[in-house]
Amino acid sequence: KNKNGNLTAPTPQNTPINPAPITSSYRPSIPAISEDMETITTQAIAGAFTGNPALLSMLQGKLGTLVGRPSGYIDQLPASVKRRLNGLKYLQSKHAELENKFQEEVLALEKKYLQLYQPLYDQRAQVISGAYEPTDEEVALGEKVDEEDEDDDEDDDDKKHAQDDEDKDDKDTAQVKGIPEFWLTLLKNHPQIVETITEEDEGALKHLIDVRMSYMEQPGFKLDFEFSENDYFTNKVLTKTYYYQDHAYGGDFVYDHAEGCAIDWKEGKDLTVTIETKKQRHKGTNKTRVVKRTVPSNSFFYFFSPPTIPDEEEEIDEEEAEGLDAKLEADYEMGEEFKDKIIPHAVDYFTGKALQYEDYDDEEDFDDDDEEDDDEDDD
Amino acid sequence: KNKNGNLTAPTPQNTPINPAPITSSYRPSIPAISEDMETITTQAIAGAFTGNPALLSMLQGKLGTLVGRPSGYIDQLPASVKRRLNGLKYLQSKHAELENKFQEEVLALEKKYLQLYQPLYDQRAQVISGAYEPTDEEVALGEKVDEEDEDDDEDDDDKKHAQDDEDKDDKDTAQVKGIPEFWLTLLKNHPQIVETITEEDEGALKHLIDVRMSYMEQPGFKLDFEFSENDYFTNKVLTKTYYYQDHAYGGDFVYDHAEGCAIDWKEGKDLTVTIETKKQRHKGTNKTRVVKRTVPSNSFFYFFSPPTIPDEEEEIDEEEAEGLDAKLEADYEMGEEFKDKIIPHAVDYFTGKALQYEDYDDEEDFDDDDEEDDDEDDD
Repeated sequence: KNKNGNLTAPTPQNTPINPAPITSSYRPSIPAISEDMETITTQAIAGAFTGNPALLSMLQGKLGTLVGRPSGYIDQLPASVKRRLNGLKYLQSKHAELENKFQEEVLALEKKYLQLYQPLYDQRAQVISGAYEPTDEEVALGEKVDEEDEDDDEDDDDKKHAQDDEDKDDKDTAQVKGIPEFWLTLLKNHPQIVETITEEDEGALKHLIDVRMSYMEQPGFKLDFEFSENDYFTNKVLTKTYYYQDHAYGGDFVYDHAEGCAIDWKEGKDLTVTIETKKQRHKGTNKTRVVKRTVPSNSFFYFFSPPTIPDEEEEIDEEEAEGLDAKLEADYEMGEEFKDKIIPHAVDYFTGKALQYEDYDDEEDFDDDDEEDDDEDDD
Repeated sequence: KNKNGNLTAPTPQNTPINPAPITSSYRPSIPAISEDMETITTQAIAGAFTGNPALLSMLQGKLGTLVGRPSGYIDQLPASVKRRLNGLKYLQSKHAELENKFQEEVLALEKKYLQLYQPLYDQRAQVISGAYEPTDEEVALGEKVDEEDEDDDEDDDDKKHAQDDEDKDDKDTAQVKGIPEFWLTLLKNHPQIVETITEEDEGALKHLIDVRMSYMEQPGFKLDFEFSENDYFTNKVLTKTYYYQDHAYGGDFVYDHAEGCAIDWKEGKDLTVTIETKKQRHKGTNKTRVVKRTVPSNSFFYFFSPPTIPDEEEEIDEEEAEGLDAKLEADYEMGEEFKDKIIPHAVDYFTGKALQYEDYDDEEDFDDDDEEDDDEDDD
């Protein structure tokens, strides 16, 4: 019992994860050898239930008892040992106080660096919009970055080839302003986000001209999606805000909930619904009429209508709970992708460089999708 | 193409993960509703191949091309846009410099806090060994910690019950020194680590009296396992050292390799092997003799003989690569569990409290084990 026949260390799988306790703020990546290996991790949901009694009671009520409740052996310890254990609990509580301070210091550091990154993000937005034209020196330095990378890879052939035909189309394109469809292009390079973008969405996402992140007074962060004038909605900025719970176990941040924003769709332009037309025959008169019905449609813009956690009173069954859990997790992860990957490395997502370092699995990236999608961007 | 029928955000699964780029140093946890949901994550191996040409070429050679190579659309951009893109690449390279500085600052912060935690760890070790007896005040404060927690849970019945029979066995146990088998008990409470501990291992792990973590000059960390005098080996301390690669993409730390240590087993006490005896009959003389053979045995102590990454020249097939990858990942994760969870929260693993916050999946925690193990600790 409690043993098995493996020589290797334990390799739990299918653990619901999204860890990053602050105490492991630079938990390193693992070099992968195989591309299609299964998920193996000891990382569990740290602090998952902390401070969220609604979720906790939901879990306890619907899904049985919690793992890891002390199984009574503590009570059976000799009194002298129990006494020492209480001494240790005191030490652990002092440790927890320090962990909270550490968490605060890391957050302060993140905020400090966001301020340092911000001028670079602002200039990036200006280059993309065409408000700023990079200097020759900046361009030369940017070209060098590429060359250094390619020296590493020992394949600078592409680069030289690219430079050869640089002058050809100068006249044709002198009037192109900034970098058109920069954000749409890079979002379509993201293996998971591309899956949420419909062909109809692209018309609106062509007008996405910047994505920004900011911290708030309370724990959490806010994403701003800035759009240029477009035919779809009147909002200049769409926002998505993620709130963390207050100090949780082990100095972790734990998601509390997310809030989207109302999109002011122009007449008949709501991308989150489709109008279905249906012919109906009246039984008495035998006349036919066309009935229009609004049905929800697949769309990236559901990102701004995140799933909500039901009230404690509300009854949901296990299947619903799991479905909701998966939706919440996907929503939180998409927010994190924007905050930690896409906003910081937007240029590398545009060029594809970021994908060389992020081992996105392009075949098994969907929970309920067994088809092998072709993620290649043919633009 | 590239679209599917889901309304929800994308929920990739089975992505080989172990992320924690430093830029997401407080990537928060997600409250779980369902206990047995599948792994869903957009987190991929960040910087997985960075700076490890051996692994990179192995992957490229054995497992096809990398995901996310730019697919040629960059070359087809108008010259003016290409020029601006180079301007952006320059900005991205400035960003990368800042990210590296951020990583260094977080590491400095981690080191600073390890120093602040250390006196608490030292005192913990002294209480466990019996060298220090907690004061009445410390014990009282430790009891309070428990009460506060249980007030939250609204079930302080257990606690009161525990206090009732506190005086009964005072005489019997006055001679117990410290907290015997503290580390063995807490390791057996860890859902994944318990799976690596054999009944034979327990004899040696009873003598594990402290586990410590330290940083080194070069990027990485070292784990020290301190043992009291025992019948199994002569080492006072067993060590496991994890080395990170130098600055990787996006300011991440990425594992390079791990090193164990030689265990000086006492005669016939090596827990990592079993002596198999086999009767052999000599064909000519028809005499029987007993042959002893040493075969590898399941053991926790393989933790100190981590898997090694083969040389670039060495040929390995896809299956071997995957097996090695899984072993390496499991080894790195076990190191992280010690560094980020077990050492900081040892007391909470002993009492089981930590497991209430870490949503370890107690049924599916093994890669190749379909049995439903009973993880309950019956001590």
